[in-house]
Amino acid sequence: GSELLQAERAKSNVAVEKLTELLFTREIIERKHRILEILKNEKVFDKSQNYFAGRIDRFETALARAKTLANIKAKHNWTLEDYRTASELISEPGPYGLHDSMFLITLREQGTPEQHELYLKKAEKYEIIGCYAQTELGHGSNVRGLETTATWNSADKTFTIHSPYLTASKWWIGSLGRTANHAVVMAQLVIDGKSYGPHPFVVQIRDLKTHKPLENVHVGDIGPKFGYNTMDNGFLLFNKVKVPHNSMLARFSRVDPQTGKYVRQGSPSLIYGTLTWVRSTIVMQAGGVLARGVTIATRYSAIRRQFQDRDAPETETTENPVLNYTMVQVRLLPLLAATFALHFTGKAMMNLYAENQKIMSQSAADSSQRGTGPEETRSGSDLLADLHATSCGLKALASTTAAEGLEVCRRACGGHGYSSFSGIGTWYADYLPTTTWEGDNYMLTQQVARYLLKSARHVLSGKPPNNNTTTILSTFLSRSDMGAAFDVLGSDSDLVSAFAWRTAFLTFEAAKHRDEQKKPWNDLLVDFYRLSKAHSQYLVVKSFYEALESDETKTKVDEPTLKLLKKLFRLYAMHTLEQEGSEFFASGAVTVRQITLARTVAVMKLLKEIRPHAVRLVDAWDFDDWLLDSSLGRSDGKVYEDMFYRASELNPLNEVVVDPYPGSKVLFKEDPRRSKL
Amino acid sequence: GSELLQAERAKSNVAVEKLTELLFTREIIERKHRILEILKNEKVFDKSQNYFAGRIDRFETALARAKTLANIKAKHNWTLEDYRTASELISEPGPYGLHDSMFLITLREQGTPEQHELYLKKAEKYEIIGCYAQTELGHGSNVRGLETTATWNSADKTFTIHSPYLTASKWWIGSLGRTANHAVVMAQLVIDGKSYGPHPFVVQIRDLKTHKPLENVHVGDIGPKFGYNTMDNGFLLFNKVKVPHNSMLARFSRVDPQTGKYVRQGSPSLIYGTLTWVRSTIVMQAGGVLARGVTIATRYSAIRRQFQDRDAPETETTENPVLNYTMVQVRLLPLLAATFALHFTGKAMMNLYAENQKIMSQSAADSSQRGTGPEETRSGSDLLADLHATSCGLKALASTTAAEGLEVCRRACGGHGYSSFSGIGTWYADYLPTTTWEGDNYMLTQQVARYLLKSARHVLSGKPPNNNTTTILSTFLSRSDMGAAFDVLGSDSDLVSAFAWRTAFLTFEAAKHRDEQKKPWNDLLVDFYRLSKAHSQYLVVKSFYEALESDETKTKVDEPTLKLLKKLFRLYAMHTLEQEGSEFFASGAVTVRQITLARTVAVMKLLKEIRPHAVRLVDAWDFDDWLLDSSLGRSDGKVYEDMFYRASELNPLNEVVVDPYPGSKVLFKEDPRRSKL
Ligand SMILES: Cc1cc2nc3c(=O)[nH]c(=O)nc-3n(C[C@H](O)[C@H](O)[C@H](O)COP(=O)(O)OP(=O)(O)OC[C@H]3O[C@@H](n4cnc5c(N)ncnc54)[C@H](O)[C@@H]3O)c2cc1C
Ligand SMILES: Cc1cc2nc3c(=O)[nH]c(=O)nc-3n(C[C@H](O)[C@H](O)[C@H](O)COP(=O)(O)OP(=O)(O)OC[C@H]3O[C@@H](n4cnc5c(N)ncnc54)[C@H](O)[C@@H]3O)c2cc1C
Repeated sequence: GSELLQAERAKSNVAVEKLTELLFTREIIERKHRILEILKNEKVFDKSQNYFAGRIDRFETALARAKTLANIKAKHNWTLEDYRTASELISEPGPYGLHDSMFLITLREQGTPEQHELYLKKAEKYEIIGCYAQTELGHGSNVRGLETTATWNSADKTFTIHSPYLTASKWWIGSLGRTANHAVVMAQLVIDGKSYGPHPFVVQIRDLKTHKPLENVHVGDIGPKFGYNTMDNGFLLFNKVKVPHNSMLARFSRVDPQTGKYVRQGSPSLIYGTLTWVRSTIVMQAGGVLARGVTIATRYSAIRRQFQDRDAPETETTENPVLNYTMVQVRLLPLLAATFALHFTGKAMMNLYAENQKIMSQSAADSSQRGTGPEETRSGSDLLADLHATSCGLKALASTTAAEGLEVCRRACGGHGYSSFSGIGTWYADYLPTTTWEGDNYMLTQQVARYLLKSARHVLSGKPPNNNTTTILSTFLSRSDMGAAFDVLGSDSDLVSAFAWRTAFLTFEAAKHRDEQKKPWNDLLVDFYRLSKAHSQYLVVKSFYEALESDETKTKVDEPTLKLLKKLFRLYAMHTLEQEGSEFFASGAVTVRQITLARTVAVMKLLKEIRPHAVRLVDAWDFDDWLLDSSLGRSDGKVYEDMFYRASELNPLNEVVVDPYPGSKVLFKEDPRRSKL
Repeated sequence: GSELLQAERAKSNVAVEKLTELLFTREIIERKHRILEILKNEKVFDKSQNYFAGRIDRFETALARAKTLANIKAKHNWTLEDYRTASELISEPGPYGLHDSMFLITLREQGTPEQHELYLKKAEKYEIIGCYAQTELGHGSNVRGLETTATWNSADKTFTIHSPYLTASKWWIGSLGRTANHAVVMAQLVIDGKSYGPHPFVVQIRDLKTHKPLENVHVGDIGPKFGYNTMDNGFLLFNKVKVPHNSMLARFSRVDPQTGKYVRQGSPSLIYGTLTWVRSTIVMQAGGVLARGVTIATRYSAIRRQFQDRDAPETETTENPVLNYTMVQVRLLPLLAATFALHFTGKAMMNLYAENQKIMSQSAADSSQRGTGPEETRSGSDLLADLHATSCGLKALASTTAAEGLEVCRRACGGHGYSSFSGIGTWYADYLPTTTWEGDNYMLTQQVARYLLKSARHVLSGKPPNNNTTTILSTFLSRSDMGAAFDVLGSDSDLVSAFAWRTAFLTFEAAKHRDEQKKPWNDLLVDFYRLSKAHSQYLVVKSFYEALESDETKTKVDEPTLKLLKKLFRLYAMHTLEQEGSEFFASGAVTVRQITLARTVAVMKLLKEIRPHAVRLVDAWDFDDWLLDSSLGRSDGKVYEDMFYRASELNPLNEVVVDPYPGSKVLFKEDPRRSKL
């Protein structure tokens, strides 16, 4: 394998290091390598038994790792970025996961200064360990429907937290199952029999010393999952547990302890911002998530040889690397293009977010609580609404692309892709919930559609465009009579315009159905889904295009590399266009002839041109072998040696000797589990 | 949940039992229930710890189950069908899996009567336990490229089995890792330095008493996988191991022990038939495989309520079952339709197979060995070739549809779909390799394309059509000038014709590229893939249509049920047409207007009409709760109770008490693994 990868690298002139710097900046790369060294030297982070261990062992190791990491962080005085980098390198969800993220964030953002003193400080020092308990057995997406109650007792100025039904049990709560001793519990605030909707309460659930559940708290781990098994997702039932007045996180709303009146204060626009921020990071990460699978599959299919080329001369005796087959290329290379497309889109999204943060924290937008239903209008400034819709649509598209792309990569590796040693399966399984949490990907599309409908009404009412969305809508309106005539095969900017055109067409079609024909909302969900996908694909194509046209990119990478990136842009756009052919055609953005040419000529030509650079392009993602933990994706190409080593040297099942005959009741004649005792 | 499912069942008039009988016949249903009772009464088959156990425990249990099953089979004098039914009900791959299938089949079909005496009889009594060792670390699809050698030693009339390189190690071999003491080894037969290609050898690999590997045999389990972890897939290296002359399975070719000459005898058409048979069973099973996921997701989404309908009156307070949302329907109901479509296609395929068996065993077709490369011509009679191509294309389409459909079902269940208790994840993970083995689904499409190219040449050369494929091709040729004008929205038979038209169009396009434009084979792989998919979709649509038009169906189910089945047919066909819109349009089979109407009107209308019957339709698949082992798919709708019970009562992780603080080195303060000792 080694020589094959060397040859691959030799035949391409991609400036790998420069490209890596363009993706990440030098600072981030250096940080990564610095932290990697530290982790590699700690025995507890050794990955060699990860794929073999059962759930309890894996959880135990994950806990050990979480503790060690917390200690290293303190010792080396790590920044939050350092700590996150380390978690990424370890690449497994851990028992402090939700403490480190949602618990701390919620305390910080929704707590008052006194509450920071009371909870946040201790939490930051891991003196208390928490989780974020919103979802229940019966309610996830519909946060308004939560059944846990927090009833105000004016007599002793406390709240009673209660789970009136089994379905009110908190469920899926990360870090809750075994680890946390506190929880931020989202519960319906009830005062004098009146409900004020879900609010956050800090509740202690386990004893700080014995770590046993407190009285009237029923808490535990929800059991094994498709992935994410190093995390103790938990359930939690309360039987009328009293908590003090200061349990309710009171930055934005509180109960006046004297009068028992409900008081709103300040603007919760920041929470709204957090939601958008969380989604933006998902977009930002999706490219890298997918790139792991693409790296593994690309390297493997460069060294995996199978069959001779059918049209090869008789004298040819060596077999063909499967990456030479166009049917393998067409599965992997558009995904390779997608890794870059998503990465640049995520970056653009983050920049937009940063720009808007100021406006956001000032705006007194009357927006609603975290996780409200998808059918509800969130008001706010136009820019904010645009950002919000963009983050919803892109979160859905990016995480779906990454998750499904990983499975395509796994399958492209043939039988060996199915081995845990491929390194794709576990990664894929752990990533999958990203398509469901922070807004189920299907449901998010309703929010995008609602925003686009509003934008259509804005334009149709004759108001001038006020952002990119309304701009593409009015461009469409003004030109729809004369038609599009985009040169999608010849011009990159026309390609972007064709995507904009399709979005606009679908938007006005949806507006017609809803506003003119008064179709029920439910009948339009499928159209909304398509619309959101179309719009998000437009945003990705546009962001990728703009990133490559930017001065920053032009100065950071050399001419040949930039040219190649532009080919990746075209591959991503053209392949998407061809996949969604009938929508593009129906919208009039392109002709059938153009779609046919895109499929049979343009895409095939791009595959051929990009093929020689595939290995170097994935090298630019700069994944260390330690991170990938993959036999197939090894950077030195020693695939078979590594597979064999893991199977024959590391595999504990091989210590078992069975009695194979049905006539004998003995199962294992030798058993490592028993001999170890 | 119970009342909700009851209400669902009350509002539909589907004749569930009759439909079940139509699917399976009364005999098979009774067999299933008889065997189910036996299994439920054996403690070893209790499934309640399946989702929790680690790999070694799971393997141990699987071995215990395999042994028990073999004993029950002997005791109750079970037929092969009974035994298979039991395995299906247990629903996990087991350590005797490959012994029971490929090992016995190969001995039976490729062994001489003496070899039957020597090996087969013992194998049937489990006195020897075997596996089928073809794939190697370095070669899977390309069987010709296998590196294990079997060299004839004329001096002592033995063969030397040898693995010259690490890549020659057998790999992925089911039942080999820990269980088997024999293997059918596919090895390159070498006589006097000349290679005669891969041949099957029966080789003992472990001692019959100690069960330790024999000298110069390096064998073991290949380690954990994405699924299939109850099976011990193994590796196997030989260091010049001598085996006697009778090791080579000699029904079709042998080495004359006196002269050392290679002799071919009889026709291996039966092996060819076996391959087709194996693929046909995959097609046959795919509907049922998918139906498990669809059953679970449909029942769950009928009881899962989330949000109120946006257009519901203000007074409405209960939430909407998510199955009422069209975006959930459009994911699940076309898959529900696909379960029936695939089932009837599989049945048709099996009938065709049976019909052809006689012709096949007579035909002296000069066909090649099991698993030859995809780019190689297999000759044979026209009927045979048609059957072979059909089985390749349908195997690929059916297993891809089932595998990907299961994941759609899992995701449709939102967060709870991710829990192991959904019952979909494990099933999906175990099924996935079906897309890779018995011909990688992508590679198989080349065989279909080759056959269609041949058929196109047949028709273009002016010969009269001799089977369905050539018939649709000549119909297309004769009508292509005047155009299609199919009434796809109004006529079911026109809908089938539109699929035939598209296949024919793509076939002639491919023929033009290959034969006129002389494009390299490799450049056409993507077109071939599409062509194969198109052709296979046509076959499914046609088989489903014909099944519903058949007298058998008409007499077996009542009018309303038959009508509903026809709606399912239309949903499957229309949804597929709409998904593949641009191909249909480019072929001229339909107009853009028709595609748009299919999407926005026809499909949406069918969803609405089928929705009320969804639960009864999945009930007709008659899956016992014991088989499904799913909280979400419980037939009584007690989803939440069951989830909670499994998490809080069965989950061993909840016996662990952790020390959560990073300052403490203690991980588990209480540990069930330690206390059990
Ligand atoms: C691994 C994992 C970790 C998690 N960690 C946490 C955590 O730490 N804390 C926490 O609070 N939660 C957590 N969650 C829960 C997660 O946030 C929810 O699962 C998620 O919000 C989805 O909600 P749901 O499961 O209720 O889906 P549901 O809302 O029940 O969705 C079921 C199906 O119905 C569809 N649907 C529902 N409503 C509509 C509608 N109005 N229109 C159209 N379709 C609809 C959905 O698309 C989906 O297909 C976690 C989940 C997972 C899987
Ligand atoms: C769970 C499991 C159990 C198994 N059990 C057994 C067993 O009991 N006995 C046994 O002998 N084997 C077994 N196998 C092996 C199985 O048969 C092979 O994995 C399968 O044949 C695929 O071959 P491969 O892995 O070599 O894929 P490869 O041929 O290496 O394919 C890799 C990739 O290259 C592509 N590709 C390869 N050649 C071409 C080409 N010419 N044109 C275009 N694309 C190409 C493929 O589509 C694929 O994407 C098992 C496999 C699994 C996963």
